[in-house]
Amino acid sequence: MTNFILKNENAVYYECGFSCDNEIFLQFGSDRFFITDGRYTVEAKEKLRGLKVVEARDVIAKAAEMLAEHKIKKLHYDPNDFTVAEFEKLKASKYTYFEPAPDFSKKKRIIKSNKEIKLIREAVRRGEAAFDRFALWLRRNALNKNEKRLQFECAAIMQNYGELDLSFDPIVAVNENAAKPHAFPTDREVKIGSLILVDAGVKYERYCSDRTRVAEYNSEIGFDKKAQSFLSSKRQKVYDTVLKAQEKAIRAAKPGVKACDIDKAAREVIEKAGFGKYFVHSTGHGVGLDIHELPVISAKSETIIEENMIFTIEPGIYLPGEFGVRIEDMVRIAPTRAVVL
Amino acid sequence: MTNFILKNENAVYYECGFSCDNEIFLQFGSDRFFITDGRYTVEAKEKLRGLKVVEARDVIAKAAEMLAEHKIKKLHYDPNDFTVAEFEKLKASKYTYFEPAPDFSKKKRIIKSNKEIKLIREAVRRGEAAFDRFALWLRRNALNKNEKRLQFECAAIMQNYGELDLSFDPIVAVNENAAKPHAFPTDREVKIGSLILVDAGVKYERYCSDRTRVAEYNSEIGFDKKAQSFLSSKRQKVYDTVLKAQEKAIRAAKPGVKACDIDKAAREVIEKAGFGKYFVHSTGHGVGLDIHELPVISAKSETIIEENMIFTIEPGIYLPGEFGVRIEDMVRIAPTRAVVL
Repeated sequence: MTNFILKNENAVYYECGFSCDNEIFLQFGSDRFFITDGRYTVEAKEKLRGLKVVEARDVIAKAAEMLAEHKIKKLHYDPNDFTVAEFEKLKASKYTYFEPAPDFSKKKRIIKSNKEIKLIREAVRRGEAAFDRFALWLRRNALNKNEKRLQFECAAIMQNYGELDLSFDPIVAVNENAAKPHAFPTDREVKIGSLILVDAGVKYERYCSDRTRVAEYNSEIGFDKKAQSFLSSKRQKVYDTVLKAQEKAIRAAKPGVKACDIDKAAREVIEKAGFGKYFVHSTGHGVGLDIHELPVISAKSETIIEENMIFTIEPGIYLPGEFGVRIEDMVRIAPTRAVVL
Repeated sequence: MTNFILKNENAVYYECGFSCDNEIFLQFGSDRFFITDGRYTVEAKEKLRGLKVVEARDVIAKAAEMLAEHKIKKLHYDPNDFTVAEFEKLKASKYTYFEPAPDFSKKKRIIKSNKEIKLIREAVRRGEAAFDRFALWLRRNALNKNEKRLQFECAAIMQNYGELDLSFDPIVAVNENAAKPHAFPTDREVKIGSLILVDAGVKYERYCSDRTRVAEYNSEIGFDKKAQSFLSSKRQKVYDTVLKAQEKAIRAAKPGVKACDIDKAAREVIEKAGFGKYFVHSTGHGVGLDIHELPVISAKSETIIEENMIFTIEPGIYLPGEFGVRIEDMVRIAPTRAVVL
C-alpha cells in the first residue's frame, strides 16, 4: 500500500471523517496516524476509530520525526498542499524519499460514492431552497438597495441565520458588474429592469452545492424557472444562447466522452451565436468537499467522464461594460447520461 | 536595493496600494512589476502608478520568465508564501539564486506609519461601535438563543449589513465553550447568568481591529466597561485576575523592553492567583493588514518593542468544562508607554 501524508482539511476528512484546523494525516502501509495539537486531541480521540491520535505542538516537525522513527523510505505528498517552509521541515527525515503526487486526494475523490451523492443532493436541495428565499427577499426589499447590501443579504439568507455554511462567498452582481466573472460588490443600486446575477451555494455535512442564476428585477423575480424574460432583445438573445449552450453541454455529458467534448458542445453554441470571444472561462468543475474538484471541464481537459462524477456545467457570456449571463447547475453522471441534481 | 518577489495579497497591497486575488509583485532594484490575469489588468493599470502591469494567465510562470529575461542573480522570497509546486515553477529561471527570507513583508510592516495608525484607529473605533450594537441585540434578543445563532448575529451586526468586512469569523462562546480558545459554536442556549465571550473585529480600508470581551448575560449586558460583575465568586476572581494581568502587561509595554517581558508581566499575575497552567496561549500579536502580524508577544519572543508597533494584549484563563475568560485590547507603543487604541 502507498505511504502518504495529507495536510489539507478536506483531504484529511475524506480519509477518516474528522478534521480540525491544524492536523497532519499519515498512512504507512495499513497504519494510520492523526497528528494534532492539544486543543483538538480529546475530540479527535472520540471521533476517530482505527487510527492513532498523536499530540504535538508542531504537527509537521512531529510528522518528520515519525517518518524517521518508522524508517519510511518513500512517501507520497501533494506539492500544492505544503509551503516551501513546511516541506523543508518535513525533509528533516533523512530516510525518506518524497514522491510528488499533485492532486493526490482530489484524484481519489473524483468518483463519488453513493453516500457522497446523497449528501451532495441534499446540499443542492438546500441551496435551491435558499435561492427561493433570496428571491422572496429581493421581491420585497431589493428596490434601490445596492450590491453590497444584496451580497450581505444573500449570504445571510443562504446561511439561514447560522444553520448552514456557505460553499463560498456568494456573488451578487448587477448589470455591468455581472460582466466581470469575479466582480467586487459596489454601491450600484437595483432598479426595475436591473439584471441580477446570483452565484451561490451551501454545504450539507461539509459537501458543497454551487448554482448560478440570472434574472431581471421586478416584483415577480424568481430563480425557480430557467426560462427567463428580459425587456431588451439583446439580453434575451444572450440569455437564451447561454441556456441553449448549457442544455447542449448537459446532453453531451455521459460516460466515455472526454471532458473537452462537453466544453466544446457549450462553446459551439455560443460561437455560432457570435459571442465566442465573450465566453472567457471553462465550462465546469467537479464539486464535493471542495467547491473546486476534479474533473475540470475545459477545452484542454482530456479526462474521460465516468459514472458518478459530479460537476458543474456553467457556460457564460460577458459583455464588458454592458452585462453578463452565466447559468450553472450541478450534474451527476448516470450510466447513460448526465442528470441535473 | 534588494530584489524580491511577493504573492501574499496583503504584502502586495502594502507595497503598491492595490491587490486582487491572483497576482505577483516583483521588485528588481528600482523597477517594480505587478503581474495579474486578464480579469484584473484594467483596474490594476488605473490604480497603479510608477510600476508596470504585466498580463499573464499563469502569473508564476510569467515571473520565472521575467527573472530569466532580466538576468536576476539573486531574489528574496518568503518560503511561507509559496507552495512547493509554485516554487518549482519559479525555479525555471536558472539564472536566479532564491534567498529564503521568512516573514519578509511582515518584518517590513512591524512599525506602523502615521497613516496606518489612523486607519487602524478607525477600525478599532468601528469595532467598538459594533460591540455596542451587538450588546444591544443581546439585551433584546439573546435569551434562549443558541451559540450558532449568536455567532451568526454577531457576524451580521459587526458587518453592519454589508458596510464593513470582518477581520475574522467572530467567536461567540457560552459558559464551558468559552474554556476552549478555539470553540466551535453549538446548540447551547443562553440563559440569565450565562457567561458570554465575544472575540471579534472589523476592517477599515483593509486594516484590522481585534477585541475580546466577557460578560454575564442579563437584560443590561454591555461591553463598554471593562469592570464586569459576576454572580459566582469564582467567575469574579478569574475575571478580575485576567483584567489585572492585562493592565499589568499594558503598563509593562514600552519602547526598549523585550516582548517576552510583556508576556511575563501578564503571566506572573495569573500564576500568583493560582491559575498559571490555565493561561494556555501567548499574550498577544501584532495587528495590521493581517490579523496576525509581528511582533509576537510570547514567553519566547526576544523582539525589542519599538515606538509605533501595534499589537494585542490578551491574557486569558481557561477552566476546562467550566468557563473561560479572555480580555483583549489593541495598543500602540507611544514614546514612553503603551496607549490603548
